[in-house]
Amino acid sequence: MRRAFLLVLLALPLLTGLAAAAPPDRQLVEDLVAANRILAMEGVLDGYGHVSVRHDQDPSRYLMSRYIAPALVTAADIVEYDLDSNALEPKGAPSYTERFIHGEIYKMRADVKAIVHNHSPALIPFGISGVPLRPVFHMSAFIGQGVPVFEIRESGGMTDMLVRSAPLGQALARTLGNHPAALMRGHGAVVVGPTLPLAVGRSVYLETNARLQAQAAALGSSLTFLDAEEVRKVEARQDYKRAWELWKRKAMTK
Amino acid sequence: MRRAFLLVLLALPLLTGLAAAAPPDRQLVEDLVAANRILAMEGVLDGYGHVSVRHDQDPSRYLMSRYIAPALVTAADIVEYDLDSNALEPKGAPSYTERFIHGEIYKMRADVKAIVHNHSPALIPFGISGVPLRPVFHMSAFIGQGVPVFEIRESGGMTDMLVRSAPLGQALARTLGNHPAALMRGHGAVVVGPTLPLAVGRSVYLETNARLQAQAAALGSSLTFLDAEEVRKVEARQDYKRAWELWKRKAMTK
Amino acid sequence: MRRAFLLVLLALPLLTGLAAAAPPDRQLVEDLVAANRILAMEGVLDGYGHVSVRHDQDPSRYLMSRYIAPALVTAADIVEYDLDSNALEPKGAPSYTERFIHGEIYKMRADVKAIVHNHSPALIPFGISGVPLRPVFHMSAFIGQGVPVFEIRESGGMTDMLVRSAPLGQALARTLGNHPAALMRGHGAVVVGPTLPLAVGRSVYLETNARLQAQAAALGSSLTFLDAEEVRKVEARQDYKRAWELWKRKAMTK
Amino acid sequence: MRRAFLLVLLALPLLTGLAAAAPPDRQLVEDLVAANRILAMEGVLDGYGHVSVRHDQDPSRYLMSRYIAPALVTAADIVEYDLDSNALEPKGAPSYTERFIHGEIYKMRADVKAIVHNHSPALIPFGISGVPLRPVFHMSAFIGQGVPVFEIRESGGMTDMLVRSAPLGQALARTLGNHPAALMRGHGAVVVGPTLPLAVGRSVYLETNARLQAQAAALGSSLTFLDAEEVRKVEARQDYKRAWELWKRKAMTK
Repeated sequence: MRRAFLLVLLALPLLTGLAAAAPPDRQLVEDLVAANRILAMEGVLDGYGHVSVRHDQDPSRYLMSRYIAPALVTAADIVEYDLDSNALEPKGAPSYTERFIHGEIYKMRADVKAIVHNHSPALIPFGISGVPLRPVFHMSAFIGQGVPVFEIRESGGMTDMLVRSAPLGQALARTLGNHPAALMRGHGAVVVGPTLPLAVGRSVYLETNARLQAQAAALGSSLTFLDAEEVRKVEARQDYKRAWELWKRKAMTK
Repeated sequence: MRRAFLLVLLALPLLTGLAAAAPPDRQLVEDLVAANRILAMEGVLDGYGHVSVRHDQDPSRYLMSRYIAPALVTAADIVEYDLDSNALEPKGAPSYTERFIHGEIYKMRADVKAIVHNHSPALIPFGISGVPLRPVFHMSAFIGQGVPVFEIRESGGMTDMLVRSAPLGQALARTLGNHPAALMRGHGAVVVGPTLPLAVGRSVYLETNARLQAQAAALGSSLTFLDAEEVRKVEARQDYKRAWELWKRKAMTK
Repeated sequence: MRRAFLLVLLALPLLTGLAAAAPPDRQLVEDLVAANRILAMEGVLDGYGHVSVRHDQDPSRYLMSRYIAPALVTAADIVEYDLDSNALEPKGAPSYTERFIHGEIYKMRADVKAIVHNHSPALIPFGISGVPLRPVFHMSAFIGQGVPVFEIRESGGMTDMLVRSAPLGQALARTLGNHPAALMRGHGAVVVGPTLPLAVGRSVYLETNARLQAQAAALGSSLTFLDAEEVRKVEARQDYKRAWELWKRKAMTK
Repeated sequence: MRRAFLLVLLALPLLTGLAAAAPPDRQLVEDLVAANRILAMEGVLDGYGHVSVRHDQDPSRYLMSRYIAPALVTAADIVEYDLDSNALEPKGAPSYTERFIHGEIYKMRADVKAIVHNHSPALIPFGISGVPLRPVFHMSAFIGQGVPVFEIRESGGMTDMLVRSAPLGQALARTLGNHPAALMRGHGAVVVGPTLPLAVGRSVYLETNARLQAQAAALGSSLTFLDAEEVRKVEARQDYKRAWELWKRKAMTK
């Protein structure tokens, strides 16, 4: 029933005469559902936050759930967006207010295929202090590529903190630059990757690293972080595939 | 069976000749049960604490569970109180000792429709120190409206720490003033809102904020809290509805 | 089957001609089983530790599980001990090495009806530092009656840390004195009470208090602990009954 | 079906003319599966890490799962390795990249029968700081025998952090020396023991000790660690058997 709804949803652009992409790979949709459930299970997403993936048939589209809590997402909830973050089908489906985060980053970063926006708790203290995140262990080596902090006041002044427009999304994308993640002051983070498993794995281990770095700092000694060359070599092989298989199995069977 | 008991319970004032309110909306009672379960599930309430809602048909009444642990509350346990915190029906039902917290706040605050009293763990350290809670992220922006600390010694001297009388309830309500929450030194907190989802969401994110603020303070740098204008703008839109739907589904199906 | 075994177990002293107590109240045995499960569920006991209750028919006897992990205890595992901590029935049942903790405290403290020995994690840091536990909130007011630290080196020299003899049990009982609990340096704690729910509730809230006191200390401000008179008044009413009912229901149905 | 596969797997060396060990004890294989599940359940292993046991019929062989997440391991996934960490059967089964940790330690330490490699979170801060682990309570007394830190840069220069060769495995084994465990800077730890329950118990209580030692240090007072003689006496009796029985029951029935 839900699958049928999804097929209809994805077929509608054709029927209505829009220039539509071919339907996305079914496996990609399944992985996007799994990514939502995994991030909820691992405590990276609570009732809020969202995860998207670039359409595999059309790089000018992306897929993301309609406006519901990530733990509840099914394939029938996945909506197709253009890069201006308009819901193509179903038109008028209730959308996440901050979908511009996704569209604007996909525009600026051709290498990015998956994006997570979260309120990952251990990141909040780093986002509001001047203390930079540093890679404390190899599972979060990507932090060594730099994790800038987005201060929404610089581009938006005093706001309600949400990235609720294309210009705010562009400002966030500029702060992100070529980095794998950016903290959002008083809000959370955005994490990107060339695959869903990488964006999800980075989200999990960014949270872990923040917790462990805070604990290490409290020990009051000088710390040895990963060296830039270690970071480069770890990242050349990191795919989080073994964890992804475990997470997916656990998230989809509970 | 339990529903039948509830109907009888709510009908009894009529039969016994008291001026009784119309029965409350069934959805409101369901939401009150859900609020109890959610707050237990999220670790805000343990075996103790309570949550109430103002009667939707009569603002001089409120609804709250009889004396049991919040995780165990069902619709059949809901009792109707007047604002002096007398159990109207069933008369003599065992009541929470501290029900005066609820009645006295409803008297002073016409805008308040829901109240949570808890022993939320991360709040205890803030309640016994001079360190004020400050909003570290947008989900708990309401903290920027001020969270005073109630010192029961000022009005009650050396007590057994419980708000077990109307005068103590009034003293707490005065400390609360127009704020969304107040800490209770060595005890817990009271959290209020214009709806059950707001009182529940504030309770959850007050606990989260306390934990994250303590972590941020330990990083030893100067911190950027939400600005007053950011607080105003976030609060103008905040309803915690997406989280409420998720919490309710999880709490009522486990 | 297990109940039958228990009855036989308790009847055996009669058959073999020993002066035996009447069988304990069945409810007491059920509560002792529940206490084991609750303390495991709440993270106070892990694979180790034990809980006992004084025999309701004979104050010179106590009941405790044979040598197994608390989470696995059933009524059939309950053994009757004399105050020298000899297993009366079944003779030679494998016993906890540290059963002398229980027997020696029951000898010295007629008011004590239930005893918990645990490795409660948050207590370890307090046991090895000079920082005294203080009551941070009313649920753990009993801490205001004093929680001394037992240094086994003072009576036993360099040992394997276990209270594996009557003299070591007596030394611990002397350190405990009239207090509701004592920490054991590098080991854990012993907690006593006039009922099982009180010994269990104190065990749970001792752990909670230790965690919260450490967090409060880290905030770096001066702290307001419960006053001695507040402690007296809280303790006059505290029975942990509402929590006990919840814990018991949860522990026995999962 | 899986058991049949295992029997075939273990019989294959005979059929193909290799000098093969007799099949391992079935109980040993069951315990190895349990060890994987236990360490995942207790949060010592996440999607990564591995545990091995020396073959009971041939000390020049060891058993370990093929390349999957520990939580998913079954008896059918167990592979037999020689001490150069070649998979004997099935040849070419996908193996953990860091299997050299196991083979090289088994070569140097005849007393070691079981090895755990993990990313145990609370150990990371100690591995990257100069703060040595010290035994804070008797369950982790073995730490008093010394837990050195392996700095892969000293033998491998700037690497991708993995022990992916025999020489790196030998360097780690030399750092481990005669100790029960070694931290790996920015990576995790290796824990060894004369039995699976001891290697597993040490892994669990190493994590616990790290967490509690950090909390104790934060209390800011001088700390009393276990004395060398206490360590000796505790270790003479420690087998973690009661915990092992509980963990095994829980891990294999959930």
